[in-house]
Amino acid sequence: MSRITCPTLRPRVVTAAEAAAHIRNGDRVATSGFTGSGYPKLVPPALAAHAKAEHAAGRDFAVELWTGASTAPELDGILAEAGAVSRRLPFQSDPRMRQAINDGQTEYIDTHLSHSAQQAWFGFYGNLDVAVVEVAAILPNGLLVPGSSVGNSKTWLDLADRVILEVNEWHPRAYEGFHDVYYGTRRPPERLPIQLLESMQRIGDPYLRVDPEKVVAIVETNHPDRNLPFKPADADSQAIAAHLVDFLRHEIRVDRLPPSLLPLQSGVGNVANAVMANLADSEFEGLRAYTEVIQDGMLDLIDSGKLTSVSATAFSLSAERAEAFNANIESYKGRILLRTQEMSNHPEAVRRLGVVAINGMVEADIYGNVNSTHVMGSSIINGIGGSGDFARNAYLNFFVSNSRAKGGAISSIVPFASHIDHTEHDTQVLVTEQGLADLRGLSPVARARRIIASCAHPDFRDRLTDYLDRAIAANPHGRHTPHLLAEALSWHERFHATGQM
Amino acid sequence: MSRITCPTLRPRVVTAAEAAAHIRNGDRVATSGFTGSGYPKLVPPALAAHAKAEHAAGRDFAVELWTGASTAPELDGILAEAGAVSRRLPFQSDPRMRQAINDGQTEYIDTHLSHSAQQAWFGFYGNLDVAVVEVAAILPNGLLVPGSSVGNSKTWLDLADRVILEVNEWHPRAYEGFHDVYYGTRRPPERLPIQLLESMQRIGDPYLRVDPEKVVAIVETNHPDRNLPFKPADADSQAIAAHLVDFLRHEIRVDRLPPSLLPLQSGVGNVANAVMANLADSEFEGLRAYTEVIQDGMLDLIDSGKLTSVSATAFSLSAERAEAFNANIESYKGRILLRTQEMSNHPEAVRRLGVVAINGMVEADIYGNVNSTHVMGSSIINGIGGSGDFARNAYLNFFVSNSRAKGGAISSIVPFASHIDHTEHDTQVLVTEQGLADLRGLSPVARARRIIASCAHPDFRDRLTDYLDRAIAANPHGRHTPHLLAEALSWHERFHATGQM
Repeated sequence: MSRITCPTLRPRVVTAAEAAAHIRNGDRVATSGFTGSGYPKLVPPALAAHAKAEHAAGRDFAVELWTGASTAPELDGILAEAGAVSRRLPFQSDPRMRQAINDGQTEYIDTHLSHSAQQAWFGFYGNLDVAVVEVAAILPNGLLVPGSSVGNSKTWLDLADRVILEVNEWHPRAYEGFHDVYYGTRRPPERLPIQLLESMQRIGDPYLRVDPEKVVAIVETNHPDRNLPFKPADADSQAIAAHLVDFLRHEIRVDRLPPSLLPLQSGVGNVANAVMANLADSEFEGLRAYTEVIQDGMLDLIDSGKLTSVSATAFSLSAERAEAFNANIESYKGRILLRTQEMSNHPEAVRRLGVVAINGMVEADIYGNVNSTHVMGSSIINGIGGSGDFARNAYLNFFVSNSRAKGGAISSIVPFASHIDHTEHDTQVLVTEQGLADLRGLSPVARARRIIASCAHPDFRDRLTDYLDRAIAANPHGRHTPHLLAEALSWHERFHATGQM
Repeated sequence: MSRITCPTLRPRVVTAAEAAAHIRNGDRVATSGFTGSGYPKLVPPALAAHAKAEHAAGRDFAVELWTGASTAPELDGILAEAGAVSRRLPFQSDPRMRQAINDGQTEYIDTHLSHSAQQAWFGFYGNLDVAVVEVAAILPNGLLVPGSSVGNSKTWLDLADRVILEVNEWHPRAYEGFHDVYYGTRRPPERLPIQLLESMQRIGDPYLRVDPEKVVAIVETNHPDRNLPFKPADADSQAIAAHLVDFLRHEIRVDRLPPSLLPLQSGVGNVANAVMANLADSEFEGLRAYTEVIQDGMLDLIDSGKLTSVSATAFSLSAERAEAFNANIESYKGRILLRTQEMSNHPEAVRRLGVVAINGMVEADIYGNVNSTHVMGSSIINGIGGSGDFARNAYLNFFVSNSRAKGGAISSIVPFASHIDHTEHDTQVLVTEQGLADLRGLSPVARARRIIASCAHPDFRDRLTDYLDRAIAANPHGRHTPHLLAEALSWHERFHATGQM
C-alpha cells in the first residue's frame, strides 16, 4: 500500500529532478535530518547536479542550507562538493562541508540547537524559501508521520514558502506513534509554560502538520539513513566510562542523586556508547534518558532492561542496529519518543527534569573552560550542537575526552583553551581516562590543581603545574585566574610549528 | 511600634556582638544582600571585630561567605580587610574583597546568579551553618517582611542550621506587599513548571519563612543601604544608549519586536541609566522590565509613565533616590515586585517572557566572544552576575561598552578575548559609542568585519583589520575563525609591557 494516502497530495509526486527545480539560486533551503537520520535522500543530489550544470554553464548557483543538525554525504557532502552552499546552520559534521567552511567558501553559523528553530521563527535568519522534509508516510488528511528524526522539521514546515516532501519507505510504517511534536510554541510575549513533568510525557501530536497549499512536490524513496559503523569502545573510552559511573555511585551515596539517577543525556560517540555499556553491566535499575540522540549503546541499554525509556530527537545507529530496530520497531513502542529538537534540548525541560549531561570535548584549559568545536583555534570540527543547551541547564554535567590526541602529540588539558564554547561558570566535572575532576564549588586555581592531578596525561602534568606555578608567581595581584599571556597559547603554537605540544 | 511583633521571636533580640558569637571559625555563612541592598549591617562588622581579636590572639578565624550578590563595605569590605573570608560566592564588587581574591587570600567561585541557590540546595557547596538575613519586619506569626532585596534569602533561611535576623527600621514598614517569594521550588525529579506568564504576575508569597527554632539571635538596626552616588551619563554612555534605542526602533519596524517591546533587563551602571533616560525621552509606551536590579534610571522611567512595571530582585539606588523612594513607597505599590534571584534570573522565565537583555562588557574579541569579568586575563573585577542567565535565554541580547578604556590605552575590541564569559554562540548585538554591530546570522569572519567597522575605535580599527586579514591569509584551511596564535593575546601583553595596547 502506498505511503501517500492523501488524495490532495498524491498527485504531486514527481521525480527528484523535477522537485529540485523548485529551488532557485539564492534560496534559503531548510531540510529535515539530525545526526544522519531522517534527512532527504534524493532531492539534495538532484539539487547538486543542477548546481553543477549551472556552474558549467557559467551561472551562479548557491543556496543557504539549514537543517536539524548533521546530515550525510548525499546532502551536506554532495552540496558542499558542488560548491552550492553559501551559508550553513546550525550544525554539520560532514568532511566535505567542513572543508568548504574551513576553506572560507561556505559561511557557517554555529548555534545552540535549542535556539535554531526559535531564532528562525523570530526572523533572525531571514525568510525561509523552501523546506525539504523526509517523512515515513502521508496520512489521508495530509498529516505527516516522521521517520527516524524530528529535528527542526516542524518549524521548517511552518515557515517555508514552498515545501518538498520525500516519503521514504525504508522507514517502517510503524513509526506512527513514536513522535511527539509540540505545537504549543508561541512567540513572546504569548509564550506559555511547557507542561512537561516527566521525561516520557507526551505534550504534543504524533504528526507533523503542513499546509497542503505549500506542497509543491513529493518524491518517493526507499533509501537507508547514513548509519555509520559502530566502533567498539577502546580501553580509554572504557576507562572514562568507569570513572564516570563510579562517580555517579558516589553521588548517590552522598545523597546528591537518587538511586535510579536523573534523566541521562549523552552526546554522540564512543565514550557515550561506553558509558551505556558500563551502565548495562551495572547495578542501576529504572534509568531514563532525556537526550538528543539514540545511539546503539542506548538501544542496548533498553534491551537490557536497565533503561526504561528514552526521549530524544533522532536516532544515530549503525547500519546493522538500524535494520534490527526497524525489524522490531513495535517492541520499542512507548519506550522511545522523538521530539522536536526545540523540546529535546529546551532549557526549561532540561533544568526542570534535572538532566545528567555527558558531552565530549576537544580540550579544556586548566581553569575548566572547554573547547568543543575547534582545532588549534581556527578550524571548525563540527559545532557546539546541543552541548551548551544541556551543560548550562543540567543538574550535573560532565565533559569527557582522552587526555591526549594524535598519538600523544596533543594534550587535551592546556594552559588556555584555543577556543571556548563552555566557560568556567558552566563546566562541573571533567573526565579523561586518567581520572575525574569534580570542579563544583572550587575556585579557578583549585580547579587547576585538580584538573592537572586527575585529568592531564602524566606526560604533560609537570609542564602544566610549572605553567600554573609561574603564572601565580608572575601575578601577585592577579591570582584569581593567573595566566602568562605570552605563553598561554604557546602549546598550540608549538604544535603548529613542530607537530608536538 | 516595634518591627518585631512575634512573641516567640521578640525575646531573642541581642547585641550584634552576641549575635556574631554564634558564628564559629570554619562556618559557612550566608547573608542576604544584592547590589548593596538589604544586606545585614551590624553582625558582619561584629564578626570582623571578633575575627581580628582571634587573629591577634594567634588563633585562626575565617568563614565562607555566600550572599545574593554584591554587598557593601560593612560586609564584604570589612570582612575581607579582617582576613576573615576563606571562600566567597556567587558575586562581589567590593574593592577590598576583590583585592583579597586577586591576592590569592580568598577563593572566589563566580557562578551564574540563577544557579547559586539551587546548587547550594543540591549540596554542591556543602552544608550551610549560619544565615544572616536582614528584613524590614517580623510579623506576629513569625513570617518575615523583606526589605530592599530578596536575593537568595529564601534559600539561605531554608538551608541554614542557625539563623540570625537583622530587623532594619530604615526599610519602610510599607515594604509589605512588594515581594514575591516563590515557594514552589523542588529538587529534581519533583520539579514543576513555573506558572509565570507575565512579568508582574505573582507566583509566590509576600513573605519569607523561617523555622523559629533555628533563629538563634535577632539584632535591631536602623541603617541605610550602601547606595552609591548616581553619576550622570557621559557623552559616550548617551551615544551607546542612542544607538541601542534606535536599533530597537528598527526591530519594531521590521516586525521583530512589538511596539511596546518585550520585558527589558538592564545590567548595573551608567550605560543602563542612559538607556533608561533615552527611553524616557522616547515615543515608547507601556514598557515593562523583567530584570535583576532597579537603578535610579528605571525609577525615573516609572515616574515618567513610560515603564508600567518592574520585576526585579533588588534595588540599587543613589542615597537621594533611596530616601525619596522610601518616602513615597506607597505610590509604587503594584508597579514593583521583588522576587528571589532564582526567579528574577530563571532561564525558564527569561526565555518564556522573551526578555531584551542589556549588559556591560569589559571587552569583546573580533568574533563576538565577550569578557565580562577579568582584566588582562588574570585579575577578576566583579563577576559574571546574571549576565549569562539573561544573555543566553533572552529574545535579544546586547553587550555594551565604551570602545576604549584608560584614556585610549586599551581597546575594548581585541583579536582574542583574554577571558571568555559569553561565547560567540550567545552574543547577538555589540554596542559601543562608535556604533552597533548586529551579529545574528553571521559567520565569525562576517562578524569580525562588522564589529571592527561598527564598534572598534578608529584608533584601533586598521590594526584589527590587519590582524584579521593576516589571520585569514595564514590559515588557508582554517578560515572559519582564523587566528594568529602567536599574536592573539599580544595586545594584552603589550599593555602589560608598555601601558598601551
